[in-house]
Amino acid sequence: MMNSAATRMSVSQIDAYLDEVFPQLHHGGRTYVVEAVGPMTARMRCDYHERHLRPGGTLSGPTMMTLADVALYVAILAQIGPVALAVTTNLNVNFLRKPGQAALIGEARLLKLGKRLAVGEVAIYSQGEAEMVCHATGTYSIPAA
Amino acid sequence: MMNSAATRMSVSQIDAYLDEVFPQLHHGGRTYVVEAVGPMTARMRCDYHERHLRPGGTLSGPTMMTLADVALYVAILAQIGPVALAVTTNLNVNFLRKPGQAALIGEARLLKLGKRLAVGEVAIYSQGEAEMVCHATGTYSIPAA
Amino acid sequence: MMNSAATRMSVSQIDAYLDEVFPQLHHGGRTYVVEAVGPMTARMRCDYHERHLRPGGTLSGPTMMTLADVALYVAILAQIGPVALAVTTNLNVNFLRKPGQAALIGEARLLKLGKRLAVGEVAIYSQGEAEMVCHATGTYSIPAA
Amino acid sequence: MMNSAATRMSVSQIDAYLDEVFPQLHHGGRTYVVEAVGPMTARMRCDYHERHLRPGGTLSGPTMMTLADVALYVAILAQIGPVALAVTTNLNVNFLRKPGQAALIGEARLLKLGKRLAVGEVAIYSQGEAEMVCHATGTYSIPAA
Repeated sequence: MMNSAATRMSVSQIDAYLDEVFPQLHHGGRTYVVEAVGPMTARMRCDYHERHLRPGGTLSGPTMMTLADVALYVAILAQIGPVALAVTTNLNVNFLRKPGQAALIGEARLLKLGKRLAVGEVAIYSQGEAEMVCHATGTYSIPAA
Repeated sequence: MMNSAATRMSVSQIDAYLDEVFPQLHHGGRTYVVEAVGPMTARMRCDYHERHLRPGGTLSGPTMMTLADVALYVAILAQIGPVALAVTTNLNVNFLRKPGQAALIGEARLLKLGKRLAVGEVAIYSQGEAEMVCHATGTYSIPAA
Repeated sequence: MMNSAATRMSVSQIDAYLDEVFPQLHHGGRTYVVEAVGPMTARMRCDYHERHLRPGGTLSGPTMMTLADVALYVAILAQIGPVALAVTTNLNVNFLRKPGQAALIGEARLLKLGKRLAVGEVAIYSQGEAEMVCHATGTYSIPAA
Repeated sequence: MMNSAATRMSVSQIDAYLDEVFPQLHHGGRTYVVEAVGPMTARMRCDYHERHLRPGGTLSGPTMMTLADVALYVAILAQIGPVALAVTTNLNVNFLRKPGQAALIGEARLLKLGKRLAVGEVAIYSQGEAEMVCHATGTYSIPAA
């Protein structure tokens, strides 16, 4: 479905770029992984890890917010390449259900990719489950080239 | 200004409660600290730490979102006590400026504390600086007693 | 696609109900029309009208916000019926492009319909155009029966 | 308190400008009035009017969203003048309490006024009441000069 041939950066290029510019994402162990990128889309996974937990074994809100933010950032990166560093200006997150004890999957889709602003949405699911656990929208400022 | 005598839980009681129910907050080293609670307010600090960084030494968006979420949660806890576990349902975050290489201070204020929903706002500053670096609003669902 | 047989209220029942409880929606002329309801979905149209304009003939932000809010309200009404009056607690709106001189179509979808809270998203298009002009998410409090 | 001498446009200049560029605001009767502008702030009033009502005599959500949006727009206008037309890109609104049968007052404050983006918050009150009925934050794109 997702065709990385249509993007400026491949999954492995993006992973390498994230390691370089944002190593802190992996503090405590690598859990955020780019699964796929396509035209205006990206799919990221956050593996289940002790440091992401809330009481009761559920994954924390900040873990889902981070996944949403990074998935949108990756979708932009795939489209415009690493030439410009997009900056998050707004993130709105709705927490819908408690995620189970499984990896989280974030499906990001850009709704607009303008010269100065990009806007997208992310749906987050527990891996293997049909019901959305979290939905987010984000706005990113794209610096002048 | 802030009078913890008017709240149901003191700063030290809240710190102990957070350690018990949310130990993952301190994964990688204790950086989130409750500084004060008062009527409908809370002030939290997030100490500058390597794991919170973005390229250029600035603090990451997820670090600020976590601070906003926890500061609002603490303000609610101070008012209603640990009897009910409030759950974040919505968080909206505006990133205004890049924070400097310093601790972050989050000033939370509840705008509404109803039986079922609490709504509040948080202003985040770099310690010692006058300009707000981030502003958030959040909604919390309060379970039936 | 949308099957009103699966909902508690039909399009004409919802239109009649809106007329009764929210006549002000039609102040200055009837422009907001329910087009379809289905399981967890609703489609509403806002006809192009002089009172909805901004300079340059584009439709105003408040017109789109009203459409988003009413479309989500209608989607909830279709599912739970008129027994309980849902109240908007949060609306987050991203304005993506200037709509053209045409009717607006709002496609609402509920992401969660709990006992106390419903959350949904709305995509707004200019009639006949493929690109989204506005995206909104909303939270509604559902009173105890 | 508010000192219009420190702004680029006075209250009467802004009112005249709104009449010119956004006459639809007054469709059905003039109810939105600029009360004061100051450094990074604006205060607007929305008079109680039949067309703004919801069942039970309370003022509608769209009325409050419009007030929030226009109050922020006016605060920006007062700072930068009518040279550039700021465009709303995001509005997040929390509805806190049902407003009474009175005018609404919107107190807007800019949190950031950059070259490309302005961000602000608005607190809305029923005239003469102490409790906030609605809180909003908004982002505006400022076109290149």
